[in-house]
Amino acid sequence: MSLRLTILGCHSATPRSRAHTSSQFLELNNDCFLIDCGEGTQRQLRKYKIKFSKIKYVCISHLHGDHFFGLIGLISTFNLLNRDKELHIYGPKGIKEIILLQLQLSKSWVDYPLHFHELSTSESQLILDNDKVEVYTIPLNHRIYTNGFLFREKKQERKLHMSRIDHYPEIEICDYQNLKNGKDFKREDGSFIENKELTLDPPKPISYAYCSDTAYDESIVPLIHQSDLLYHESTFLQEHHELAKKTKHSTALQAGSIAAKAEVKKLLLGHYSSRYKDLELFLKEANQVFTNTELAEAGKQIFIDTYS
Amino acid sequence: MSLRLTILGCHSATPRSRAHTSSQFLELNNDCFLIDCGEGTQRQLRKYKIKFSKIKYVCISHLHGDHFFGLIGLISTFNLLNRDKELHIYGPKGIKEIILLQLQLSKSWVDYPLHFHELSTSESQLILDNDKVEVYTIPLNHRIYTNGFLFREKKQERKLHMSRIDHYPEIEICDYQNLKNGKDFKREDGSFIENKELTLDPPKPISYAYCSDTAYDESIVPLIHQSDLLYHESTFLQEHHELAKKTKHSTALQAGSIAAKAEVKKLLLGHYSSRYKDLELFLKEANQVFTNTELAEAGKQIFIDTYS
Repeated sequence: MSLRLTILGCHSATPRSRAHTSSQFLELNNDCFLIDCGEGTQRQLRKYKIKFSKIKYVCISHLHGDHFFGLIGLISTFNLLNRDKELHIYGPKGIKEIILLQLQLSKSWVDYPLHFHELSTSESQLILDNDKVEVYTIPLNHRIYTNGFLFREKKQERKLHMSRIDHYPEIEICDYQNLKNGKDFKREDGSFIENKELTLDPPKPISYAYCSDTAYDESIVPLIHQSDLLYHESTFLQEHHELAKKTKHSTALQAGSIAAKAEVKKLLLGHYSSRYKDLELFLKEANQVFTNTELAEAGKQIFIDTYS
Repeated sequence: MSLRLTILGCHSATPRSRAHTSSQFLELNNDCFLIDCGEGTQRQLRKYKIKFSKIKYVCISHLHGDHFFGLIGLISTFNLLNRDKELHIYGPKGIKEIILLQLQLSKSWVDYPLHFHELSTSESQLILDNDKVEVYTIPLNHRIYTNGFLFREKKQERKLHMSRIDHYPEIEICDYQNLKNGKDFKREDGSFIENKELTLDPPKPISYAYCSDTAYDESIVPLIHQSDLLYHESTFLQEHHELAKKTKHSTALQAGSIAAKAEVKKLLLGHYSSRYKDLELFLKEANQVFTNTELAEAGKQIFIDTYS
């Protein structure tokens, strides 16, 4: 049970010499996601030696170019690499038309199963639910239809408390799965041993909330409450809060405020405007209201496991 | 009267760590063209310090991703940079739909005039004709509809042969333009002094032929005849000529052969397949049939002026 997040790009607007647009690679409970895919993402994947074949799901927050212009190239490259595993794309309605039009006009149909899951509702919804993870949308408040994503490990089974189980010779190995599932043990005389006597709580599932791009909006707080990690965009510093409001972006102080209200464990800032040269100012500003904050930067990895 | 060509990328298929997909920046007689625009082209433009605002025309050979996936990002970046000058895009039919769909879905209409010139004929045609240059399509033989482009300076006026003109006091400054235009000088007695007595031939207009991607096809030879510079794709070496034929690409030997038949002054090779590590083999192969050959590589500049 672990999370490893690799930042591939975390700057806004356009790719520049040392500024890569939004993309992150997330490994959660051994399932792998690409979150947003700005132009140049496939080069960043190669730079950080992330195997293309590991990516099973791609989640696109919105259709501004700095979040998805690299997707068509990645889809094409998967084909050139002879991918045969299915690929699932989650993103706003319209993303399928954009990709298929380009494949059609280039006569470059992909040979692997490509599944689109187009999003259009403005309520949070469960969009992926497998045996390892759940993914929910986080409706964001931006100039165009935008979702963040909450990635959460599936709840684990209860842990057997063996030193206690050993006191009851009538409990056999074939009973263990029922105990892990939370059932009480039924004795032959019809009485019960309560499950909580025989098992321990499983670790709390690790969760990661990705929120880019958005105006300051407290309505997301319940959705991301007590997440282990929150990436919240901070395009601007507070000195430009009017510009943030106008363009429906956030300041570092606002990102910190959301992190504090949501009681997350760690905050990661990113999506910096190119107008700022000293990114440490973002950290200082967020730290005023939320101390456990880090700056995203290309190549940075954040690792969380159940026992950290 | 000069040509400066900057290679931004010259590898096939997908962008990799040290392999950039097709794009070139051409300055010809002070007009500036971007030729093809693979993913990452805008980063390459920045790397080689080419001002975005200089680009007036974009010529896209075909709709395979390694030749145009960077275009939508570049168009968007122009807008973020507050471009107001018009931009002309020349490319296969369909390119307008791809670009406009993405601008529409991202609600990111550009604020500068964006003109599409969609190409669909299979005959060479004059697609641009201004006071500085002419551009013709070079129909190529590839898996999808593809054009190369022939860029040629406009023919200059004849040069005044002043030491001879000085022998004729009746020729005044106001007559010079007629002489430059090739007209004979008419004396007052009605007789003529022939133009060739009074002027010199202007320099031959510089021309550049860009041919990517294409199978070996001699039908292009008359179109590119005696060009000052030919870029001809060489995806493969001759050992893989069957693969070249199957995928409608060329080998280095075939590129050299086209250069020789067309009697061009210089050949530039590119669009190398990633299977080859030693690119010098391309040079050696082409040199068997055409000696004045160079390998394209990102950052390389080729300069030609009228007197070189």
